[in-house]
This record gives sequence, structure tokens and C-alpha cells, in this order.
Amino acid sequence: MSASLSFEIDAREGEARSGLLTTRRGVIETPVFMPVGTAGTVKGIRFEELEAPELDARIILGNTYHLWLRPGIETIKACGGLHKFIGWNRAMLTDSGGFQVWSLGALRKITEEGTEFRSHIDGSLCFLSPEISMEVQAALGAEIAMAFDECAPGEATHDEAQRSMELTLRWAKRSKEAFAKLHAGSMRTQALLGIIQGASHLDLRRESLDRTVEIGFDGYAIGGLSVGEEKHVMLEVIEEIAPRMPADRPRYLMGVGTPEDLIEAVARGIDMFDCVLPTRNGRNGQAFTSRGKLNIKNARYTIDEKPLDESCNCSVCRRHSRAFIRHLYQSGEMLASILLTHHNLAFFLDTMRRVRQAIRSDQFAQFRREYTEQLNSGLES
Amino acid sequence: MSASLSFEIDAREGEARSGLLTTRRGVIETPVFMPVGTAGTVKGIRFEELEAPELDARIILGNTYHLWLRPGIETIKACGGLHKFIGWNRAMLTDSGGFQVWSLGALRKITEEGTEFRSHIDGSLCFLSPEISMEVQAALGAEIAMAFDECAPGEATHDEAQRSMELTLRWAKRSKEAFAKLHAGSMRTQALLGIIQGASHLDLRRESLDRTVEIGFDGYAIGGLSVGEEKHVMLEVIEEIAPRMPADRPRYLMGVGTPEDLIEAVARGIDMFDCVLPTRNGRNGQAFTSRGKLNIKNARYTIDEKPLDESCNCSVCRRHSRAFIRHLYQSGEMLASILLTHHNLAFFLDTMRRVRQAIRSDQFAQFRREYTEQLNSGLES
Repeated sequence: MSASLSFEIDAREGEARSGLLTTRRGVIETPVFMPVGTAGTVKGIRFEELEAPELDARIILGNTYHLWLRPGIETIKACGGLHKFIGWNRAMLTDSGGFQVWSLGALRKITEEGTEFRSHIDGSLCFLSPEISMEVQAALGAEIAMAFDECAPGEATHDEAQRSMELTLRWAKRSKEAFAKLHAGSMRTQALLGIIQGASHLDLRRESLDRTVEIGFDGYAIGGLSVGEEKHVMLEVIEEIAPRMPADRPRYLMGVGTPEDLIEAVARGIDMFDCVLPTRNGRNGQAFTSRGKLNIKNARYTIDEKPLDESCNCSVCRRHSRAFIRHLYQSGEMLASILLTHHNLAFFLDTMRRVRQAIRSDQFAQFRREYTEQLNSGLES
Repeated sequence: MSASLSFEIDAREGEARSGLLTTRRGVIETPVFMPVGTAGTVKGIRFEELEAPELDARIILGNTYHLWLRPGIETIKACGGLHKFIGWNRAMLTDSGGFQVWSLGALRKITEEGTEFRSHIDGSLCFLSPEISMEVQAALGAEIAMAFDECAPGEATHDEAQRSMELTLRWAKRSKEAFAKLHAGSMRTQALLGIIQGASHLDLRRESLDRTVEIGFDGYAIGGLSVGEEKHVMLEVIEEIAPRMPADRPRYLMGVGTPEDLIEAVARGIDMFDCVLPTRNGRNGQAFTSRGKLNIKNARYTIDEKPLDESCNCSVCRRHSRAFIRHLYQSGEMLASILLTHHNLAFFLDTMRRVRQAIRSDQFAQFRREYTEQLNSGLES
């Protein structure tokens, strides 16, 4: 393990594990959910609220693709790196841009060298490669950087997935080499995680895991899930791969998922998560609650004085009713997004807090059962 | 003065005065700036932040017109009144809807009975009168309600302004009568303020003042300013009218204004203000600073690491740079609006805090000179 990141397991229950991930910008208790800060901001919430005990987010994501295009690396460098630029002093992780560019679909062209694509902002032609991604991520200066990978769609055939996996492996090697060069001769302050691909083909996933570990990274991520495949396929891949990932390194499941996904992935040995669901769905009027999803647009909430989630103790649920938040949403008021985002993040982060406590007290199996049962019991009114 | 509202002057300097306005939902130090909470939310900011010591807004506005149309009075009643519905436990003031309807322009038709207009939401035909406004405001339940008035444009001729003023006076009487009936037989928890009209014609303004005071209200407001007239005309009207308004009642200048407007109006004897400038302009990328306005869209701020206002100690200025906020604005991120709104409200509320301190320590003249000088000195870079 590099000096830039240390990881220590402090409890296990079955495949589930809790631990401490130590960065130079603070200690992160795992399993951890990382709010997504696409353009240098977790949409709709101030950093003060992310830091306050109620949420206490120890690490957030930044998207290399978005920040690279706007405001651009020169601006961020001139302002002292990403942390200083945005005013966030806790840990960050940057993705490699690989997935973001892949998700542009028709706008991109993938070659051996890298990915050519048109900016979603101004249509200009751009090019991202393992070397460029490493350079950009080094300039951003997050505690954790990701190897540049290619994603394959959930329904990719074995051949397609294999071609894509081989490319990702070659890019992983190039990522590691470029990363090493960039950080040579100075105390390394950034860690690099490798990404396991292979779509829904378990043999490819195993091969991708083995060969990625062979290249050697500070930790490992499972990429290319939650991209259109069925839920049971996703869980099969996680179940097959997570327990085989190096036990002494953090295991990160990228872009996943719903609260039940998090619980199920933890049960299979995952330590880290990121997902836009709590923020994006919040902006679209959806609240995650202990009894399932609540669509605030629904007319049944017009005069409903109950909080979004009766079991939730967040500042939104302590103060505001479904009726008010629905009114805000119907009126196009920004505060609807602000409140739903806050509640959803509070719900996700609190869930992870409870997951950690459960694992540490050897009650995760029971927690998982009860949590899932309640989730599926439905909203009472 | 009614039991619902008491007002006590605690210091004077020239025409400027500081005082305490006591409502059943807290004491408000005057001169006071009231953030505008149009649809039951001060746009872009959580109530927790409005209450925290940094802003400490003691009273906010609600717009009768907006709330009446959406979510509608039945919903608000079913949820226990406006305070309970929105989750705000401090004082509120509701306008009468008169100005809002007037500002709809072509969509409205004014008769002796009241104003017919089309909803800006769904185009349906609506009707608002002094009686309906009083009823709606009683249901909303703010500590301070406003008489239903008609506004005349800044450039109104003497004849037009007189006709409008006479109508407003008849409506003022009807407002008071309807208000008295609604609150008869119970301890009154709402105060009613009368509104002085007369456009830019000083003789009409004086007459409107005298005859409004004759009807008798818990306090008095100057309406129909900052509606297109020149700045010096507005100040002339305030200078002519404010010192003649009953000294023992709160004097409220409606819909005004910039920080310099506030200072100048305080110097002429005004106690209360409301304005959308800090919130609306914030959403449009404008910051109010101690050295004048700053347009965050300006490319000169691309790598500017200074805070919005170097003299400001608000949480936004302590943490974030112009460069970051500009990036957020250019990226269409909600956080740009959130941060600019917060800073602007902090700046307005801090200005009023300093105004009150200056009056109490008999240094308002000096404060006014220095504050204005600094405002006009321009941003240094």
C-alpha cells in the first residue's frame, strides 16, 4: 500500500467488512458512500452541510471529464488545485473520464490510443487517453485517482466484452506507467485504483480481476455495472468478483446504486460506493425513505403534514412536511431540490453509518434483513 | 397600537430612528430588511440559514397573490396556516396582492369592486378585492397584513395618480372594515398597515398620508415607489412623506431597494424594507459588495481567488472564491444561486445591523458618509 493511502479492516461479518481508509485529508470509515461532485459541487448542497455531523461526508467525487472541459485544468491549477479551487478540505476521488466519455455514446470514437469525443458544452473535438487522464487527475490533486478504462454495455456479447476488457487492461498499464512518471521523485500524495471490466461475463470478470491485480494498484474498483444489465446479473458479478479482490485493499463499486444495492454489495464485500441517485433523483422530486421511494409530485401529498420519512431525523424531516416540499416542487422552487437532495444524502449516509455499526457489532445479517424488509413494506399512506 | 404589534423607538439621529417591533413571534430590531419569501420560500436559501446568527432574519415576507394561487388557501389552512405549512416560526408579513396583481399589467382589469386578473400559472380568471385579500391574509396568519391598494406607475399624471389614490383610499377603508370583522371577538394576532400612494406628486402623497392616517392603521407604508420613477424623485417623496408619518408607528417603504437606497431612506425616517434585489440579482449572477456590484459572469474573475467581497465575513466569503462561484454560474450549477443569494442577504442584513448600531451610538451620519463613499469607490480589480 502506498504512503498516500492506507487501509485497515477493523471488523468482518461474512464477506461484509468495515474499515478505515486513511488519506492525508482525513480518515474515511468504510463501507462509505461518496456523494458525486460532478463539476466541483455536489449539486444543490453547500459544503458546510456535507461536513456537518448530520451528513459528515468524508469524501466526495469529482468528475475529470467535466472539470477538464470546464473550467479547465489551467484555471484549477491557477487556483491551487481542485480542493482549493472549490473550497473543500476533505478527501476527494476523481474518476478517469473513461465512463463519462463512454456515456456520451454517438459523440465519441474509441481507438487504441484513447477516446476522441465532442464536448457536450460547445461541440469542440477533444481527446482523452490514459496519459492525459493521469495528467489531468494529477493536476486536480484528489487523494484517489482512477485508471482510464473503457466500459462495455450490460448486454455486450462475450466477444465485445473481451475486446473492451483487453483494451481496458492495456490502458490500465499505460495509466499506471503515466501515473508513476508523474509522481516520480516526490512524495506521492495520490493513490491510483485499477478498474475491473468484463460486462456480465463472469469468466472475463475473473480474468480482468487477475490481470488488473497483476499490474498492481492501490485498490480496485468494479466498473461497468448498473449500465443496463438486470439487477440479478449485477449481484452475480459482485458476488463472484468482490470476495476475490485483494482483501487488504479498498474495493470500490462504481456508480452503484440504490440503498438496497449498497446493502447487498456490502454483504458481498464492497467498501466504497458512489452514485448520483440521491442528488439527481432528489432534483427530480424523488425521496428515498426507509419504506421505499416517495414521489413528491404525487397529489396524495398535497396536505400531507408528515415528513418525507417518518423514521428520519435529518434537518429536513424535522422541519418540513411532504405538503410543503410538494408545493415547492410544483412551484419550480429551487428549495425543493435543496431539501430533497439534503434528505436523500442524509438517508444514504445514515444507512452507511448503520451498516458500519452493524458490521462492527456483528449484527449486519440482522440489519440487512430488517432494513430490506422495511424498505419493501411500502409507504403507509 | 394594537396588542398584536408594539413598536418602540430606542434611538434617533436626525430623522433616522432605531427601534423594536414586537410581534408574538419575536422581536424585530428596526430599521429592518425583510427578505422576500414569495411562494413560502426565500428563493435559494434554507430557513436554518435565515435563522442562524450570520443572517438572523427576524421577519420575512410572503406574497398573498402567489400563495393564494398556489398551493391555495385551503391547502395552507389544512396544514395549519402559513407558518406551520412552511416551517418558519419567526414573524412574517404578507403583502395584499395589490401590487402583484397590478404588476401583471395587461392581464388585469381594475374596477371599483376590486381587480380581475388571469392567473400567471394557468390563465384562469381570478378576482381579488379588499375583502378577499383580508380574508386570505387572515388565513395565512402573518403577524403583519397589508391593506389592499392600487399602485400607479412612476410616470402617472396628476389626474391618473389622483384617481388611483382615491381608489386606494376607498379600498383602505374597506380593508380596515373587513379586517375588523374578521378579527372581531377574538384576541387579535395580526396587525394591519395602511399604504400611502400618489405616485410622484407630493401634494397627493401628503393627502394620501393624511387620509390614510385618518382611517387609522397599526402602521404605515409608502407604496408605489421604485416602479419606474427616477431615483431623485423616489428620494423626494420619501423625504416629504416619511418624517410626517406617525412617529410612534412603524414606517415601511415597500419594494425598496439597493443598499444605498436603504441607507438614504433610513436617513429620511424609514423603519422597514423589503426587496427581491439580493435574492433575484443573486440568481442572476450579481453580488452586492461593500464596493458596489460585482457581476460574476465577468471573465476577469476566471482565476480570481478573492472572495466576493473582501470586507465581508459571511460563510460564502470565508470559503469560496470569485473564480469558483463564476465557474458554478457558467456551469449552470444551482450552488451559484445558493451562494450568491446567501452572500447578498448576509450583506443586506449586515448593512442594516450596522445601520442600527450607528443610530444607537449617534454615528449614523458618519456611517452613511463612509458607507456610501466605499460603495462608490468601485471594485479594486
